[in-house]
Amino acid sequence: MPSFTTQVVVEWEDCDPAGIIFYPRFFSYFDRGAWNLWYSLGLTRDVMRECGAIGMPIVDAGAEFLYPCRFKDQLLLESSIEELRDKTVKVAHRIHIGAQLAVRGYEVRFWGVPHPDDPLRLKAGTFPERVRILLR
Amino acid sequence: MPSFTTQVVVEWEDCDPAGIIFYPRFFSYFDRGAWNLWYSLGLTRDVMRECGAIGMPIVDAGAEFLYPCRFKDQLLLESSIEELRDKTVKVAHRIHIGAQLAVRGYEVRFWGVPHPDDPLRLKAGTFPERVRILLR
Amino acid sequence: MPSFTTQVVVEWEDCDPAGIIFYPRFFSYFDRGAWNLWYSLGLTRDVMRECGAIGMPIVDAGAEFLYPCRFKDQLLLESSIEELRDKTVKVAHRIHIGAQLAVRGYEVRFWGVPHPDDPLRLKAGTFPERVRILLR
Amino acid sequence: MPSFTTQVVVEWEDCDPAGIIFYPRFFSYFDRGAWNLWYSLGLTRDVMRECGAIGMPIVDAGAEFLYPCRFKDQLLLESSIEELRDKTVKVAHRIHIGAQLAVRGYEVRFWGVPHPDDPLRLKAGTFPERVRILLR
Repeated sequence: MPSFTTQVVVEWEDCDPAGIIFYPRFFSYFDRGAWNLWYSLGLTRDVMRECGAIGMPIVDAGAEFLYPCRFKDQLLLESSIEELRDKTVKVAHRIHIGAQLAVRGYEVRFWGVPHPDDPLRLKAGTFPERVRILLR
Repeated sequence: MPSFTTQVVVEWEDCDPAGIIFYPRFFSYFDRGAWNLWYSLGLTRDVMRECGAIGMPIVDAGAEFLYPCRFKDQLLLESSIEELRDKTVKVAHRIHIGAQLAVRGYEVRFWGVPHPDDPLRLKAGTFPERVRILLR
Repeated sequence: MPSFTTQVVVEWEDCDPAGIIFYPRFFSYFDRGAWNLWYSLGLTRDVMRECGAIGMPIVDAGAEFLYPCRFKDQLLLESSIEELRDKTVKVAHRIHIGAQLAVRGYEVRFWGVPHPDDPLRLKAGTFPERVRILLR
Repeated sequence: MPSFTTQVVVEWEDCDPAGIIFYPRFFSYFDRGAWNLWYSLGLTRDVMRECGAIGMPIVDAGAEFLYPCRFKDQLLLESSIEELRDKTVKVAHRIHIGAQLAVRGYEVRFWGVPHPDDPLRLKAGTFPERVRILLR
């Protein structure tokens, strides 16, 4: 399944008074990894729009935090498509410091098309074939 | 079980180009809710230190995103202790906009004492009785 | 001149490994104060749009940092219109902890209308009378 | 004078509902650039501590925003020491997109040693010779 590896340097701004990464930052890294994965596959924002989606919002996300990360640590974030369904895609994310697995998590995202009844919401649409080919 | 409700206003900085909250921000809200819960119970940073902990780091977190939130939305975040074990505590978080449940998630945190072998890590210690009483 | 005071609690996520606020966060507080000021005057995003602006972007900002702020500090941010010109408005921001002035800064923002030659940019337009009355 | 160039990719999380970078993020980039400059000169956190400083906090910062930056833009941030005084150093920051200057700003930082009267504050100390040599 498609996969992309993003290099992340832990910045001062990512760390909290305990000297470790503020944990929600890892989900920001996941988001960054997901975008990089889409772009590496040719699924840019422009292509999403051409195919009728406003974006690919999150329905579900989670992570286990196994090893603390600190300022100037160099991380490797591997983002892989784990499951492709009709309307959703699950991305697995793994963050390593050297050989040490630091964080293991996932995101479930859906193909977000305009909601017919509520302009403030998106609803999950079926992935168009053009997108499905890219994600497979 | 102990519970605390935090009022959160969605700020401009919390929102992304799609006009909705950037989802890792919800985990920042969770963290804020957890701190508020500890403080409401008398478990301040000073008390943590007096009882031997550097902090209460995360081992596991997850969330489902049910309804999009936007700039200036007024949210109510209810943070409740769901399970208290020997070394970990699970906090359930629910975010409502009005009557609408927008996000449902959790954090598992441990009682973080200095690791005997690795100064860069914390290990999970048993909650001291003084802390256990506060969390129960 | 119009003024608005925003209460800000310093959150864990705002603080860095030195235990003090990561200084760019103060500019986030300024932005929050500016939005609150606009809204207190009736200048909401909807009104901005009705009056032809996409928003009120920044051209210039600066601050002096006089006293360190820490986790759980309760701050008062006073945001005041200091100067209203044809196309720009200068907002002065002052942050106090109790009686102590902690930060003194400013933002210059312009009335951002679509740029005729470049869809990626905004240009400074003249404040419409409806907006000028609100800001005065 | 010493200088360092940092590559910055604008991430989704850096952008606001207007589709451009949330301006305080530029100050985060400045902070990142300053750290990279110190590290490129051999002035790591460990060296700071060995030389008696807790860090190099900000006293003053400012910026002009000349061109909007967007998701996936590739920026070059050039951070240069502009003035070295007895107790403070001024860093000039310039951010380009291609040939276009997008942001021009500065930070004034001081050599932060423990305050004799107030454990919550730092005071400006004189740069030790070992540090002065690195910054010159």
